[in-house]
Amino acid sequence: MEYMIGVDIGTTSTKSVLYDMKGKVIAHANSGYQLYQDVPDMAEEDPEDIFDAVIEVLGQVIRKGKVQKGELKGVSFSSAMHSLILMDQDDQPLTRAITWADNRAAKYSEELKANGIGAEIYAKTGTPIHPMAPLSKILWIKNEKPDLFKKTKKFIDLKTYIFFRLFGTYKMEYSIASATGMFNIFKLKWEPQALDLLGITTDQLPELVEPTDTITGINSNYGKVLGITKDVPFVFGASDGVLSNLGVNAIDPGVVAVTIGTSGAVRVVVDKPVVDPNGRLFCYALTKDKWVVGGPVNNGGIVFRWVKDQLFAPEKITAEQMQVSTYDILTQIAEKIPAGSDGLLFHPYLGGERAPIWDAYARGSFFGLTRKHTRAHMVRAALEGIVYNLYIVMLTIEGVAGKPKSIQATGGFARSALWRQMLADIFEQDVTIPESFESSCLGAAVLGMYALGYIDDLSAVKDMVGVTDVHKPNEENFQVYRELLPIWIRLSRVLEPEYKSIAEFQKKHVK
Amino acid sequence: MEYMIGVDIGTTSTKSVLYDMKGKVIAHANSGYQLYQDVPDMAEEDPEDIFDAVIEVLGQVIRKGKVQKGELKGVSFSSAMHSLILMDQDDQPLTRAITWADNRAAKYSEELKANGIGAEIYAKTGTPIHPMAPLSKILWIKNEKPDLFKKTKKFIDLKTYIFFRLFGTYKMEYSIASATGMFNIFKLKWEPQALDLLGITTDQLPELVEPTDTITGINSNYGKVLGITKDVPFVFGASDGVLSNLGVNAIDPGVVAVTIGTSGAVRVVVDKPVVDPNGRLFCYALTKDKWVVGGPVNNGGIVFRWVKDQLFAPEKITAEQMQVSTYDILTQIAEKIPAGSDGLLFHPYLGGERAPIWDAYARGSFFGLTRKHTRAHMVRAALEGIVYNLYIVMLTIEGVAGKPKSIQATGGFARSALWRQMLADIFEQDVTIPESFESSCLGAAVLGMYALGYIDDLSAVKDMVGVTDVHKPNEENFQVYRELLPIWIRLSRVLEPEYKSIAEFQKKHVK
Repeated sequence: MEYMIGVDIGTTSTKSVLYDMKGKVIAHANSGYQLYQDVPDMAEEDPEDIFDAVIEVLGQVIRKGKVQKGELKGVSFSSAMHSLILMDQDDQPLTRAITWADNRAAKYSEELKANGIGAEIYAKTGTPIHPMAPLSKILWIKNEKPDLFKKTKKFIDLKTYIFFRLFGTYKMEYSIASATGMFNIFKLKWEPQALDLLGITTDQLPELVEPTDTITGINSNYGKVLGITKDVPFVFGASDGVLSNLGVNAIDPGVVAVTIGTSGAVRVVVDKPVVDPNGRLFCYALTKDKWVVGGPVNNGGIVFRWVKDQLFAPEKITAEQMQVSTYDILTQIAEKIPAGSDGLLFHPYLGGERAPIWDAYARGSFFGLTRKHTRAHMVRAALEGIVYNLYIVMLTIEGVAGKPKSIQATGGFARSALWRQMLADIFEQDVTIPESFESSCLGAAVLGMYALGYIDDLSAVKDMVGVTDVHKPNEENFQVYRELLPIWIRLSRVLEPEYKSIAEFQKKHVK
Repeated sequence: MEYMIGVDIGTTSTKSVLYDMKGKVIAHANSGYQLYQDVPDMAEEDPEDIFDAVIEVLGQVIRKGKVQKGELKGVSFSSAMHSLILMDQDDQPLTRAITWADNRAAKYSEELKANGIGAEIYAKTGTPIHPMAPLSKILWIKNEKPDLFKKTKKFIDLKTYIFFRLFGTYKMEYSIASATGMFNIFKLKWEPQALDLLGITTDQLPELVEPTDTITGINSNYGKVLGITKDVPFVFGASDGVLSNLGVNAIDPGVVAVTIGTSGAVRVVVDKPVVDPNGRLFCYALTKDKWVVGGPVNNGGIVFRWVKDQLFAPEKITAEQMQVSTYDILTQIAEKIPAGSDGLLFHPYLGGERAPIWDAYARGSFFGLTRKHTRAHMVRAALEGIVYNLYIVMLTIEGVAGKPKSIQATGGFARSALWRQMLADIFEQDVTIPESFESSCLGAAVLGMYALGYIDDLSAVKDMVGVTDVHKPNEENFQVYRELLPIWIRLSRVLEPEYKSIAEFQKKHVK
């Protein structure tokens, strides 16, 4: 047998899956770690924890799959975007890994937006100006931790760190690079304007490689532990976002991947880099010829959790006593409310928002309340609000990537038939639910197969991903949503100027 | 002993109280009746039911108080405003009494607002252009029920009807007249522009009298039933709104009466009629020299009931099982949330709104939601929203009647210490809670004593009304509210243009 391993380094755990060359899952493993939040807005991980987790899950799938010598044809990597680790002159980490969720650079991304430099840099890098991006983070460290900044030999990300530990060399592929805010997506080079702004040189950044590039010669200590010989190629791979598109078979033009988990995203593959005139979309590399354009949203399932915890506390207890999921009960409740929630609209910005409005101050709201509205209406309105917001992201994408042909939906949201139908009705698109098990791992493995010549084309993924369900838009519901959407959009606009004032009140007064 | 009876004809019941000449309650009675709502927006009462109720409660207090011949010095009346009854040539009702809550004339008040004629008429009558007013109602009947309109000999109100039944003559005092939208408050006459618009003449309206005018010679049948001789004077009295000001001792300049029951109102007495340049305030007569200027709000305790019924259904059951009031539990919950609800703002327009925005399409909203907000925050925000709205009415009144000196608070809201304190903090005013038992009845009785020469001045009411409690503004809370109010006001403005669109959606789709 021939095998390929896909590894996905996520924010709370690292997963690995052993596949045969048809994409069939042979074995899988998962290892979690801590997210450090010592001070407000911090979200860090210990790089050592992550490295241990990678070794752990690799070892597990090799053992579980009883992989024999010579059968492992490659290991390919997916990883969360935007992480930053500062390395010192002795190649030791000066910091933990500062993750995408860390918000401490907010002041600096605000400044970049306000002074217009952000827009110039975005137009070349395709990374929205936001505290998530290493661009903002390095600016923050330069200004607020100058000692650390001066001691830094290399600014790298988590995946680069893992490869450094395994192969002793600092290399970053285009996909992760394209999410740093410092990489020119049109020239495939580090962008001088960004580097000048930060006061750093290309020497302080990893060497750039292609996602399909490979490396051999694993450090013999780890090779021994894992039972991997020096000749097994490791594929640099790409970021989890773009690989998830591949892993759910949303790789053809016009096939849109909509993911709603805790947060959410809308993404589509295009064949060359594009940027949005208003800076609301990202454009990240999958390979040199395939780019993923899209928008990430903060407020996905986390909004539904708020509804469950804060609006429905007593039912929660009942549900726990009955040993069923509160979410299932709430979904049943929402199902009884007609599409459009009898004119109750919800803007889901409980935790600020990235796409489509890129406003960290954004807050949630209900509008249109009458005495006939019940908590059940609030539940449905919350779900609809999450999907309206994603639909606005979709409209923005349409502006640069054209009309969608179909939707591949994944994430926790896709497990509910009600939610899937809501997605089809609001997007007015067929919604396909791919069989999706660790899609970023599969994406990494497929990219690896392509890199190593086992398949000719990434679209071979088609035969590896089954279809669980397809939902067609319901004409009646669709009409209702079409009446409400313009109101929802106009409300977004008029509420926006008040987000900052209420957020500042909350910052000052809320303990 | 000498006695005075105050009768208050309300929307769901008629009350009567027998007082001694010091304002002490000797006996009281109450008789309810049905509100007819056969079709949407209808709210009618049967005049015969009301007449029976008046006879019933008068008889009861006379019997309960063991009033001896010669001891009853007068009977004085309070009544709900804006009611309309059409009488035919044989002095029989052509319609039920169409009450203030009836909304079927909405189209016509909208038209009057849109074509500017409403503003001209308001400037002379002091009655906001609204479906509640007989002006709009007669316009509706003229256009949609022309046969009824043509058969009408007299357009009268409920109190006029009662006096007609008792004394055989159609007389309407200035106070009720000033709430018809057809009475010139500066000239104390029916307004020709209004009558021309409606195509009616003064002959079709009752003769105008002063609130302090009296009449004797009760129909002997009813006199016998009640044990009232023909010489007992009946005082025409005034409307329940203005008499309630009198009855809670909010009669001096600058003493503001804030009432929050199911709906709410802010009212202050001035010494001559005034109108608001923007048509947002009413100005109704108490006597020729005392006018009550203010704003009525739809969304008072009814909002809190919605919170109880729709957001807190399970606690409601628990509370009922525990045999305590859900409202008390919710108030305790709200008390634990800091002033300002951690930046959660609520606009209470669940049922459209009269003052301060006069927009039947208005809808409720929550703004500023974060994941830290709980249902408890929603409860407190709802209460605060009710009071913010009343405060905006107060600011409008200030514009025409000057700064308030103190607040007299009444209604269900005033029973809770938390709510009273909220009122003091948001208004930044001392809030006095008068001992208030059927304040409109007391107001009617005091007006009767004044009319009949038993007291020299209405301010004699001071010695008849005790004080239950006084709340002083809490400086810290006050500061918080002062930060939030400008945001709340700006939100009101930006949300306003969307009320009509969502209300029309709801009208079309909500079953």
